[in-house]
Amino acid sequence: MSYLEKINSPADLKKLSMNELEIYAQEVRAYIIDVVNKNGGHLSSNLGSVDFTIALHYVFDCPRDKIIFDVGHQSYAHKIITGRRDAFVGLRVDGGISGFENMRESDCDAFSTGHSSTSLSVGLGYARARDLAGENYNVISVIGDGALTGGMSYEALNNIGESGTRMIVILNDNTMSISKNVGAMSKYLGKLRLSKRYRSLKTVFKRGIDGIPLIGPALVKVTERTKSWIKRQLITNKMFEQLGIKYYGAFDGHNIRETVQILTQIKSGKQPVVLHLITNKGNGLYEAEKDPEKYHGVEGSTENMRKYSSIVSDKIIELADRDGKVVAVTAAMLSGTGLAAMHEKYPSRCFDVGIAEQHAVSMCAGLAAAGMKPYFAVYSSFLQRAYDQVLHDVCLNRLPVRFLIDRAGAIGADGVTHQGLFDISYLRQMPYMTILSPKDGNELEKMLDFSLTFDGPLAIRYPKGYREIFPSDAPFSLGKWETLGESKNKVIVLAVGNRMIDLASRVDCSIVNVNSISPIDTAMLSELNRNGNLLITLEDGIISGGFGESVSHYLRSVGQKCKLIGLGFENSYCDKLTVKSAFASAGLTEDNLRKIIASHTPSGKKTLE
Amino acid sequence: MSYLEKINSPADLKKLSMNELEIYAQEVRAYIIDVVNKNGGHLSSNLGSVDFTIALHYVFDCPRDKIIFDVGHQSYAHKIITGRRDAFVGLRVDGGISGFENMRESDCDAFSTGHSSTSLSVGLGYARARDLAGENYNVISVIGDGALTGGMSYEALNNIGESGTRMIVILNDNTMSISKNVGAMSKYLGKLRLSKRYRSLKTVFKRGIDGIPLIGPALVKVTERTKSWIKRQLITNKMFEQLGIKYYGAFDGHNIRETVQILTQIKSGKQPVVLHLITNKGNGLYEAEKDPEKYHGVEGSTENMRKYSSIVSDKIIELADRDGKVVAVTAAMLSGTGLAAMHEKYPSRCFDVGIAEQHAVSMCAGLAAAGMKPYFAVYSSFLQRAYDQVLHDVCLNRLPVRFLIDRAGAIGADGVTHQGLFDISYLRQMPYMTILSPKDGNELEKMLDFSLTFDGPLAIRYPKGYREIFPSDAPFSLGKWETLGESKNKVIVLAVGNRMIDLASRVDCSIVNVNSISPIDTAMLSELNRNGNLLITLEDGIISGGFGESVSHYLRSVGQKCKLIGLGFENSYCDKLTVKSAFASAGLTEDNLRKIIASHTPSGKKTLE
Repeated sequence: MSYLEKINSPADLKKLSMNELEIYAQEVRAYIIDVVNKNGGHLSSNLGSVDFTIALHYVFDCPRDKIIFDVGHQSYAHKIITGRRDAFVGLRVDGGISGFENMRESDCDAFSTGHSSTSLSVGLGYARARDLAGENYNVISVIGDGALTGGMSYEALNNIGESGTRMIVILNDNTMSISKNVGAMSKYLGKLRLSKRYRSLKTVFKRGIDGIPLIGPALVKVTERTKSWIKRQLITNKMFEQLGIKYYGAFDGHNIRETVQILTQIKSGKQPVVLHLITNKGNGLYEAEKDPEKYHGVEGSTENMRKYSSIVSDKIIELADRDGKVVAVTAAMLSGTGLAAMHEKYPSRCFDVGIAEQHAVSMCAGLAAAGMKPYFAVYSSFLQRAYDQVLHDVCLNRLPVRFLIDRAGAIGADGVTHQGLFDISYLRQMPYMTILSPKDGNELEKMLDFSLTFDGPLAIRYPKGYREIFPSDAPFSLGKWETLGESKNKVIVLAVGNRMIDLASRVDCSIVNVNSISPIDTAMLSELNRNGNLLITLEDGIISGGFGESVSHYLRSVGQKCKLIGLGFENSYCDKLTVKSAFASAGLTEDNLRKIIASHTPSGKKTLE
Repeated sequence: MSYLEKINSPADLKKLSMNELEIYAQEVRAYIIDVVNKNGGHLSSNLGSVDFTIALHYVFDCPRDKIIFDVGHQSYAHKIITGRRDAFVGLRVDGGISGFENMRESDCDAFSTGHSSTSLSVGLGYARARDLAGENYNVISVIGDGALTGGMSYEALNNIGESGTRMIVILNDNTMSISKNVGAMSKYLGKLRLSKRYRSLKTVFKRGIDGIPLIGPALVKVTERTKSWIKRQLITNKMFEQLGIKYYGAFDGHNIRETVQILTQIKSGKQPVVLHLITNKGNGLYEAEKDPEKYHGVEGSTENMRKYSSIVSDKIIELADRDGKVVAVTAAMLSGTGLAAMHEKYPSRCFDVGIAEQHAVSMCAGLAAAGMKPYFAVYSSFLQRAYDQVLHDVCLNRLPVRFLIDRAGAIGADGVTHQGLFDISYLRQMPYMTILSPKDGNELEKMLDFSLTFDGPLAIRYPKGYREIFPSDAPFSLGKWETLGESKNKVIVLAVGNRMIDLASRVDCSIVNVNSISPIDTAMLSELNRNGNLLITLEDGIISGGFGESVSHYLRSVGQKCKLIGLGFENSYCDKLTVKSAFASAGLTEDNLRKIIASHTPSGKKTLE
């Protein structure tokens, strides 16, 4: 019987010897590789986190102690240790467990995470609550060096330092690459890495728990460009110490024995502490270790759809070729958003600002104010983090910033924290914002052409994939919807985007391609607003404040004659792990559409192909 | 003829001698004091900025060079110098000029500012655009030490340092107070301050423009608690320099002659530069200098209304007395939001996190997850900055964080960037969020009582002031609206909050107090949904996604029989500078209501008092 099979809880794990923990770690790693190969998921970051997660559970007691994993995509080992070993085969599968830390899944998950840079704030909340309640549990926030580029981390560090509240920050420094511009330092680091040894425990604890360890500059890992400065500040400048946060590091995060010893020591501290661990993304899997970026997120079974991001990839370069004012911006998502090729061809015109959406948007506002044509390519769920910058810096000034919003609508396996359900609603309420939604890749190309000379805030939103659908040569025209198919049954479906059009095409109805969400096509709406007509709006977003409500608002203002039904996501988050079940949960199905149509017309059958 | 009268542009200013500039500065200061005494406005921060603003315009050329004032409330001298001397008497007055930097007001205003911590990102956008276009103008971002607590500043600094792009950051360090816990350092600083001399120019430029000046620890100003750590990091640790941003400082920001010399020197640099200036808030006005916080914002003619914040002030203490789990959080708005007394009585249970709304909200989420009862008191416009934290950390986890949202709706003289028009829309789209709006102070007290045991995300939104209205002893009941007056004319006004109810009370109609915006009172709506009835929704917020649309959505779902009209702010920002004219611009007037009612009933006259 393997250790993996024996360990059902943190209590079981505490019975193992150090040697046994190391074997257990290998088994956990193998199990993670196995499941991720089948289901998809975050591989590299989880392989890098196995060893210190085991050490954490050896030293601390969940659920009494609170461990908050920033982003939470590196919590697989934590899930396996805390009673979810068997459930783990259902990772990212419908009805299975989440790929992120999730309060509703286990009482060992102290918080639900998903977006970056929240763990320090949440941890401080826990720590302050503990102190006020006179309790004594430990609070541990585990944050990667990438998440430190999010400004929110700084707001929290500032406040943690001031508070003096006891909590432990694990800085999981998974140095993916050594920047080329570091010169001599880089070579020295290379040598150090080969030895796989960082600080030795002796050096630190010789001086006792209260002695502040010195850190040698040689131990500083200078990683990806966007991470490097922040890390240099934190580590070489001893920012933590000056703040009143004790700093311990850097240690080898793959040495369980040492990590256990250090954690045991710092557990007894009375103030905030940072433990700096160096880990290798992809540790233990040769391929992942060699190319951690590729294995950062591994996709499960592919859906056989084309990617909008590849349209963006080609087209943005074409636009940049045509117009020297075109620049592109990403917040740590160069390849996901399709900007990698642009960055390759025009490095000086494509900016990766790190996990810093707020800065990205306001920098775009500055670029536009100075006459440039900025494109910010971002996932729907992450643009939420810059709501005020879009509202206050871009739209208020009517600046022509182009938002290319990928992963809009239901997104599948990443689940509830990453759903792109809110963008239509929050963008529609912003004055001067134009919102488009292409029906397929071809239309996205036309919209990108259109965007080049459009003079105002512009958002184009689309999911990850699409199928070519209703091919047409019609040019894109702002505020003029496209009729794709006509039925005689007086049912007209106003469908937003590829997947909603695809859905409508499976039932008997006339279909309108709502390529322009704002402004709406009032001329067409007035035409359709007739007694006997049934209008159905289909959108893969939240209903409150969404497209359907804008149609309703307009029809009311002119005197509504037709019947109107709005489908979309009702007032709840969607925790489904496939797009299909997400749509089913919102009634965005053929069956439901047929039922609605049947109740309006004598025959729900398709009368026109 | 005074210098004030002679100077109509930056070009005029450049003709003056240093001695004349100093006299001009006195005149500008006197003029600012004069106008602010009449119109209200930000006094202390502007008096502190006059001298270095004059130096900026002496050295740089607006509008060719771009000066971005962070927040922008310290730009009065800039306005007076750049052709708006006479217009300045209309500061914050209807039809007059804005109290903030505003692109639409002058081409010397490089950006429209209002919210904190945006100037570095916008400045970097300008600087990058300039470099790409092969132009040569200067970009100057002026940022206070307080604005550096906003995480967005760090995102920008990180990116500026990496970019190496030429731009100038003026760190306007208006050290308001010296923290009591600094001990020996504090005394030493006190002595230094008396001498009114900081770094001498000689020390710096002896080594030439490329020599990095040393800064002595004695020059570090440790100010308000929330600012202190950040500043210590930046200054003592030479963070700027390590980042590749040259640091010059600290200098006396009131010495025009020296500031001109320094600016002239650094203008020729090739990389990002920080110039650290020490200024006194309220410089030149004895009262303001002695008590800068009091004079930070000076109100003009008071409106003779009671403040909701004074209800909060008393009631939050009562709740804290009753329940040890009650804690309060503010983002640098202790007195504005009514938490000062709580902070006095329960310092360990009232947290001021600085200008850091994102952190504030997620820390509240952590507090609530740990079983506390957190209240985050914040202005409507500033909560926008934590949209994703409310959505992703609070609502997704259904955590009982209470949001006390002050300055909701139209806000008056602070103008377009500070309007609280969006909260209803952006909160209503968040699943699990309950949104309340009291009709007056008495009802706010009842809602606060209700909040103590309510188990979910809760927002209570209200404007600054109220008049007691329709006094009643009815208890507050969630989702049950209150009928305040009945008319026989079949016109029912659904009014959100004190000011809308007040408006409705002036015309002939039945009035419903919409104290619960979400959930809506579906029982009452069903009752009112009759042929012949006219329902009018009144809300002081944006219509898109607002309360009116939710009523419309509900009525549609049950089959609408009544007529429905929704009043509120149409799809534009409101740049009016009084509440009255803001309401007029949205048709929220007696006249407009009367017209609407008259078109529905034979007589628009009031039939029931």
